[in-house]
Amino acid sequence: MKQNNLFKLAGRQNKTSNTVIKVDQTLIGGKKITVIAGPCAVENEKQMDDIAQIVKRLGAQMLRGGAFKPRTSPYSFQGLGEEGLRLLAKASVTTGLPVVTEVMSAAQVSLISKYAHILQIGARNMQNFELLRCVGKQGKPVLLKRGMSATIEEWLSAAEYIMAQGNHKVILCERGIRTFVRETRNTLDLSSVPVIKRYSHLPVIVDPSHAVGHWEYVESMALAAIAAGADGLMLEVHQDPEEALSDGFQSLKPEKLAQLLHKVSMVAHAIGRE
Amino acid sequence: MKQNNLFKLAGRQNKTSNTVIKVDQTLIGGKKITVIAGPCAVENEKQMDDIAQIVKRLGAQMLRGGAFKPRTSPYSFQGLGEEGLRLLAKASVTTGLPVVTEVMSAAQVSLISKYAHILQIGARNMQNFELLRCVGKQGKPVLLKRGMSATIEEWLSAAEYIMAQGNHKVILCERGIRTFVRETRNTLDLSSVPVIKRYSHLPVIVDPSHAVGHWEYVESMALAAIAAGADGLMLEVHQDPEEALSDGFQSLKPEKLAQLLHKVSMVAHAIGRE
Amino acid sequence: MKQNNLFKLAGRQNKTSNTVIKVDQTLIGGKKITVIAGPCAVENEKQMDDIAQIVKRLGAQMLRGGAFKPRTSPYSFQGLGEEGLRLLAKASVTTGLPVVTEVMSAAQVSLISKYAHILQIGARNMQNFELLRCVGKQGKPVLLKRGMSATIEEWLSAAEYIMAQGNHKVILCERGIRTFVRETRNTLDLSSVPVIKRYSHLPVIVDPSHAVGHWEYVESMALAAIAAGADGLMLEVHQDPEEALSDGFQSLKPEKLAQLLHKVSMVAHAIGRE
Amino acid sequence: MKQNNLFKLAGRQNKTSNTVIKVDQTLIGGKKITVIAGPCAVENEKQMDDIAQIVKRLGAQMLRGGAFKPRTSPYSFQGLGEEGLRLLAKASVTTGLPVVTEVMSAAQVSLISKYAHILQIGARNMQNFELLRCVGKQGKPVLLKRGMSATIEEWLSAAEYIMAQGNHKVILCERGIRTFVRETRNTLDLSSVPVIKRYSHLPVIVDPSHAVGHWEYVESMALAAIAAGADGLMLEVHQDPEEALSDGFQSLKPEKLAQLLHKVSMVAHAIGRE
Repeated sequence: MKQNNLFKLAGRQNKTSNTVIKVDQTLIGGKKITVIAGPCAVENEKQMDDIAQIVKRLGAQMLRGGAFKPRTSPYSFQGLGEEGLRLLAKASVTTGLPVVTEVMSAAQVSLISKYAHILQIGARNMQNFELLRCVGKQGKPVLLKRGMSATIEEWLSAAEYIMAQGNHKVILCERGIRTFVRETRNTLDLSSVPVIKRYSHLPVIVDPSHAVGHWEYVESMALAAIAAGADGLMLEVHQDPEEALSDGFQSLKPEKLAQLLHKVSMVAHAIGRE
Repeated sequence: MKQNNLFKLAGRQNKTSNTVIKVDQTLIGGKKITVIAGPCAVENEKQMDDIAQIVKRLGAQMLRGGAFKPRTSPYSFQGLGEEGLRLLAKASVTTGLPVVTEVMSAAQVSLISKYAHILQIGARNMQNFELLRCVGKQGKPVLLKRGMSATIEEWLSAAEYIMAQGNHKVILCERGIRTFVRETRNTLDLSSVPVIKRYSHLPVIVDPSHAVGHWEYVESMALAAIAAGADGLMLEVHQDPEEALSDGFQSLKPEKLAQLLHKVSMVAHAIGRE
Repeated sequence: MKQNNLFKLAGRQNKTSNTVIKVDQTLIGGKKITVIAGPCAVENEKQMDDIAQIVKRLGAQMLRGGAFKPRTSPYSFQGLGEEGLRLLAKASVTTGLPVVTEVMSAAQVSLISKYAHILQIGARNMQNFELLRCVGKQGKPVLLKRGMSATIEEWLSAAEYIMAQGNHKVILCERGIRTFVRETRNTLDLSSVPVIKRYSHLPVIVDPSHAVGHWEYVESMALAAIAAGADGLMLEVHQDPEEALSDGFQSLKPEKLAQLLHKVSMVAHAIGRE
Repeated sequence: MKQNNLFKLAGRQNKTSNTVIKVDQTLIGGKKITVIAGPCAVENEKQMDDIAQIVKRLGAQMLRGGAFKPRTSPYSFQGLGEEGLRLLAKASVTTGLPVVTEVMSAAQVSLISKYAHILQIGARNMQNFELLRCVGKQGKPVLLKRGMSATIEEWLSAAEYIMAQGNHKVILCERGIRTFVRETRNTLDLSSVPVIKRYSHLPVIVDPSHAVGHWEYVESMALAAIAAGADGLMLEVHQDPEEALSDGFQSLKPEKLAQLLHKVSMVAHAIGRE
């Protein structure tokens, strides 16, 4: 990569120390691993409240949940919209956990900023340049997922679009790339973690749930992500995965999440993190 | 593919006859092959006028040119914006050729509709669902490029997003997919042409210029596209490719385009088209 | 590609004229398109004789058929072995058509050379270097299929392995690469045809049957291959595809093959070939 | 995967307990992590002896080194051949470390069996079925690397080819798959580790050196592999990577290997292994 000209702001050549992003009381990119957990989609008040309590109790630092869902088909469940944002915000207040949720268009940025602590850009929108510029002009941190077929250069360039507007609080999120492999939904490219750490000072977290698409493989990939040097994890959890309105197959039951977080803690300590 | 439920509007099961889209005097999807040609980016008035005259003289039916350019890096040339649209529209009036240009965000749709005859959705925005809905609510035809790692199912679902809003004038455009191959910029997946023809009634054209990324391979792939059953071609041409502001390497010189169009005409006749 | 050092024998820089390979009375790589057709696997005497008669009658120049079959599972039908070779040779004598069949190991080379006119190296063996050297030491032409994930550089280097042993009669065969696409068995990379023509003087043919994996798409891709500049086609045909012992789904019925060959002839003439 | 019929011997449905393979005093597939280290290619006596001493001193359990090298070009260094095997065997005797080396053809099997403790099948030969059958007929353990574009089903089917001949001592080795990613040589697909563990009882190790192709990323991926559940690692080490005859760019210096092994030990303990 000819990073010198491309990554004036995202590149490590102009800022050698790691960027640490503060969200309420939580730091992302420091010594401590950050765990973001929650359902794929906000479904209803009881579901959201219950999962938020579980996530809080198990020691995760942030809550995730989709209110606006990017779906391949226009006929699939598209999320609860603003009602979902309200349920998320309520669960955030109750638990004290900051909230991450996806923004799918420039028109939604101001609305979602009212409810969420971190704005997520999904894989399909990684090169939606208007959206990148728009989240770059507001002040909340942005979680930027890697596109399904994005090179590292394209991914960092997308971060650069955001940063060039003044918002330097960008968290990168590896979520798997599209390959010929069929046993997993995507192929989690964990080598992107050390590559990003070499070229950029930005924090990078990993979403193993979307990558593997099957709950049985999530724990192994979560542990591998931490061992590879990731700064955090984004995990899907659901009380009743079989009944989830989207992506139930890849969601962990609460007891599996508890077990996973215990092991993550062990691996984190092994490599000198918390 | 389980197309029955997914493609209520785009699928062939509910509309067996091919869709033919009328743009001024030109039909896309009928017996006659449609050729859209022009520069990658509108650069200045003289360039645009000259290329438009060449395109007209060589017998192409439509003019292409980018005013708003999606670029990987925020520091690359981003297009002339509305000034580019004005130059395109002027060239359209002079030559009588309808104009295709890319719309990169919902906010641009009404502006671009004033100048262009067909709105192009680029590969990076194939799953920008807000943009799809927005172009679905206006009346001009939409040229929907395939995403870099989109399956046929995802591509037709994106068309379905547009059509579900009421606009059934969707033209699909194969432009290559991202693979391990390095000798070409992308891998032109011409088998998508018969697959689309099997599952959908929508017209499908091919952009060999972006797919191969090198002018020497464009002619072969253009001829192959027509032989495979494509309804048209989208081609990049430039008077002076070495000096082009973007993608000069894949642009044809006018004399090469003339030769290509002559051969396209021969192959079209060979398979019973014009 | 840094072809100068890598492709001393296969590269066009040291031999600018196209290589034309003579097999009995048939030339491969000249002005005339070569069609090789036959069943995926030799199944029994009647099947082989009948298909050979059909292939002959429809005007194809060569007969194909697998006696030793590379199969993913050790429990799948592995071919008739030497008995299959005998049936192939008998059909060859009856019809006067030369025969192409796959050689899967160095140990089989001398046996297969007794029966076949061209030795085929399958995609899985493209980098079986001992086998490449072995077929390079005998005198019959070699049909070298592209590996499932081979770059053009690796493919030409495999040809170079054969040629470096003294056998310069190498025919390249594009048969699709492995990508994320699921609607076709592989992704036929037709841009490899002009890329090969640019870098090498060797003839290149295309096998659309294995690439697309579905008979409905074979004709489109066969026509596209010829339009792209391929020197020939390799096609699977079967009297009764539903009952074929392997790959029936991608085999053409005789009447479909007849129609395809008629169209191939039209496209070939359109681009100045026969 | 429809594993029931395909994987009679390699599948977990017929043998639920993990297979542990004994090589001299070392077990592969048990609680203890196995580390195999050494140079990409055996270059000369001093190099081999020195690296073997280093590998022994740092606590690795086995020695690797290529005597016959599969190279893309026929003009690249092809290995020292039998002389390389002798140097490997000498280093093995001196250090007491068992030796793994690659066998590239059926004709080499008996020769290599005389010198090596484990026969390695390289990625390019994963579907060289004659070679698979041949190593299946002898008694030494086989290390079966995953093909560059092999699905898990194809990989386990290749193991089944070996096992169906009577040799059940198969060790699987993930070494990266070919994707569009350019920042690493291949894309290490660590999710294959839990997928293999679900479907098969065979041990699985990981080769991060070939996967990433750059020494800076090897440590992260080695730690990730262990965290993901791999039974061991295969690592390239060289006293003087800049002068290595092949793949120097991805080789670790001895001091980096020492550091890596220390961290591997920490992560192994964290997940309850040794």
